[in-house]
Amino acid sequence: MKKAFNEVRVGVSTHMKNTNQQIGWPKGFRSSGISAGIKADGSLDMALIYSDVSAAAAGVFTTNQVCAAPVKLCRAHLVEPQARAIVVNSGVANACTGVVGMEAAMLMASQTAGELACLPEEILVCSTGKIGPQLPMDKIGPGLVALADSAAVDQVDVTARAMMTTDTRSKQVVRDIELGGVSVRLTGLAKGAGMIEPNMATMLAFITTDAVVEPSLLQEVLTSAVDQSFNRITVDGDQSTNDTVLLLANGASGAVVEKTEPVGYGAFVSALNEICFDLAMMIVRDGEGADRFVTVTVEGAQTADEADLAARSVANSLLNKTAWAGTYPDWGRIMDAIGYAAAQVDEERVNIFYGTTQAVEGGVQAASSMEEMVKAVSEMELLIRIELGLGTGSATVYTCNCTEAYVQINV
Amino acid sequence: MKKAFNEVRVGVSTHMKNTNQQIGWPKGFRSSGISAGIKADGSLDMALIYSDVSAAAAGVFTTNQVCAAPVKLCRAHLVEPQARAIVVNSGVANACTGVVGMEAAMLMASQTAGELACLPEEILVCSTGKIGPQLPMDKIGPGLVALADSAAVDQVDVTARAMMTTDTRSKQVVRDIELGGVSVRLTGLAKGAGMIEPNMATMLAFITTDAVVEPSLLQEVLTSAVDQSFNRITVDGDQSTNDTVLLLANGASGAVVEKTEPVGYGAFVSALNEICFDLAMMIVRDGEGADRFVTVTVEGAQTADEADLAARSVANSLLNKTAWAGTYPDWGRIMDAIGYAAAQVDEERVNIFYGTTQAVEGGVQAASSMEEMVKAVSEMELLIRIELGLGTGSATVYTCNCTEAYVQINV
Repeated sequence: MKKAFNEVRVGVSTHMKNTNQQIGWPKGFRSSGISAGIKADGSLDMALIYSDVSAAAAGVFTTNQVCAAPVKLCRAHLVEPQARAIVVNSGVANACTGVVGMEAAMLMASQTAGELACLPEEILVCSTGKIGPQLPMDKIGPGLVALADSAAVDQVDVTARAMMTTDTRSKQVVRDIELGGVSVRLTGLAKGAGMIEPNMATMLAFITTDAVVEPSLLQEVLTSAVDQSFNRITVDGDQSTNDTVLLLANGASGAVVEKTEPVGYGAFVSALNEICFDLAMMIVRDGEGADRFVTVTVEGAQTADEADLAARSVANSLLNKTAWAGTYPDWGRIMDAIGYAAAQVDEERVNIFYGTTQAVEGGVQAASSMEEMVKAVSEMELLIRIELGLGTGSATVYTCNCTEAYVQINV
Repeated sequence: MKKAFNEVRVGVSTHMKNTNQQIGWPKGFRSSGISAGIKADGSLDMALIYSDVSAAAAGVFTTNQVCAAPVKLCRAHLVEPQARAIVVNSGVANACTGVVGMEAAMLMASQTAGELACLPEEILVCSTGKIGPQLPMDKIGPGLVALADSAAVDQVDVTARAMMTTDTRSKQVVRDIELGGVSVRLTGLAKGAGMIEPNMATMLAFITTDAVVEPSLLQEVLTSAVDQSFNRITVDGDQSTNDTVLLLANGASGAVVEKTEPVGYGAFVSALNEICFDLAMMIVRDGEGADRFVTVTVEGAQTADEADLAARSVANSLLNKTAWAGTYPDWGRIMDAIGYAAAQVDEERVNIFYGTTQAVEGGVQAASSMEEMVKAVSEMELLIRIELGLGTGSATVYTCNCTEAYVQINV
């Protein structure tokens, strides 16, 4: 699998932190995670991440026309791109909750601001969980007090766990870089394990850094990083109402990131891209009920957009996702899925590879033996490469298989 | 469910034949079904339907860019819209088989023509099964002889069963009508149980009639009937390489169908529409591993096309399909799926109903009690009606749920 990644992301480290290992925040950030009683089983369900000082802030959100109250509120608050804190609840999405839901999100922001002695507009609110129910504000209020009281610099893991819904493990990544001799840290947390598609569905990711970054540049580098990471994964093809990626830069290190200093800028962008990519891969690996990680690369499409459409058609095909739970080299389902994609395909030019084993040559079965093919598709880290032979457009998406366990989780 | 159908198809009978009941062909048609040894388990795998005289012929095929050799051959043969026979094998799709596969399909046609003493161009060839392998021509040849030898007027059921792949039951419908005092019959067979989406995936349907119909009119009424039936069902969102619907009219009754005789024309079109609709519904009901039949109707879209896109987004959403295996009224997943459809949605105008129970009013949970909602979504025939409140466009698609059994079948 390291190999698969390296093949598609030359030059980017794929080192992943063991998520059981405690990692720390950048300078000037604290956090907490508590159980406020929103989830019936009493597990962790509220989290707070805050900066001691006001931080530059950037965000990327779901493109779903039906979006949650906290998404609307975050968008409004980021008109002024400064923030002090991110407050999160899990268990209830506060989506499709109308005016009452919007008032609840605003109350979460103002109550958090009261605890942190800042303006409500400096609070970014996120929710994840069931669509429809209203937030239990009688639990949220005391929860916010407990979050503020317990916030500390060494609580990254409990914070990440308090964001989880169907996730089986918390998702945390850290990168330390040097900018002009000054140590700078980026720490990212994410949650998400299903309903993941283009544009990031039911996925929350929060990245903090102590670098000094001007807000418009912060937004630019975040948007680019998200395009190359969270927007390239798909678990079940569904897009959520609540997807949010936020990035806070509080400047506590004193190290400045700007384009006029290309070495430092490059290092920062690389670290941010790695954080987003690693978090995105952790989400796919934790795909609901999944036990295989699948990379689908399409090359030789007429355009990059067509390559993307063909790759997503394969990655989201239920027939392919179920095939990848077995060990039969069912490349016909790949041919079928590219055939109905909104991308030009000339069946006689198509080559398909499982890893390095060629399955299809010129649209028909290649010479590889069945034994080789079965071995190739039995890899737990499956790399599927499709050559369309029509142009230079290429794209890669990362996905997982669909097992009976997915159905059990989502019934 | 009868109710659901009536609501969306006013004026069309929804009577379905019991498929265990033996039904007959129109005058002048014979058929057979045999085991040629293509399927490893020795079950039925070849079928022949033929007319004693040359018949007017029409066809509708998959729109997948990757399509099977027999589809290409049928298209070529229908340039001259006359046919004597349809020959079918199951077990191997003869798709992604290149020049060898094309030659095999042509050989199937010429060998059948030899048996029936007609031209190869009068034979329509269909295959269904695994994509990739070549047809075992050493078995096909003797199979064709056996098919011709055993053809008879009373073998509709064995013919239908010989077309099956993952189907759990054969699919047959008959309609008898009177045209100017003359009795006319339409008999239809279909196979298909998965990989069903817009444009009819992995689905074969053959309809025969003893009416006299001019070929161009035959094509017109078939295309229209398919649009209202096979193109409105979806099982798993995948489109196949082999979809084919064929209609043969051999004129043996002597009764002429033409637009200048609107009463008879209307009766014929209604009967054809009913046959196609009933066969399509049988396919959805036999959806791989499915145990719920779901009708998704979208009303009030800006256009009919947008209504269709919204309905398909819901019907193909894996999160919704799995929800429909349970009894929890998870209307948030419906809101989510219409939100990411390529159709304009204003969340505050959306109403959603399960049967007659309102789940969503103005984008938020309606006043119905949880008990009422659970009862409504527990119906084995689930009718979901979505009002977008933006215009007059409406569309209905028919689908089924996704269970663990689907995954087991497709691993």
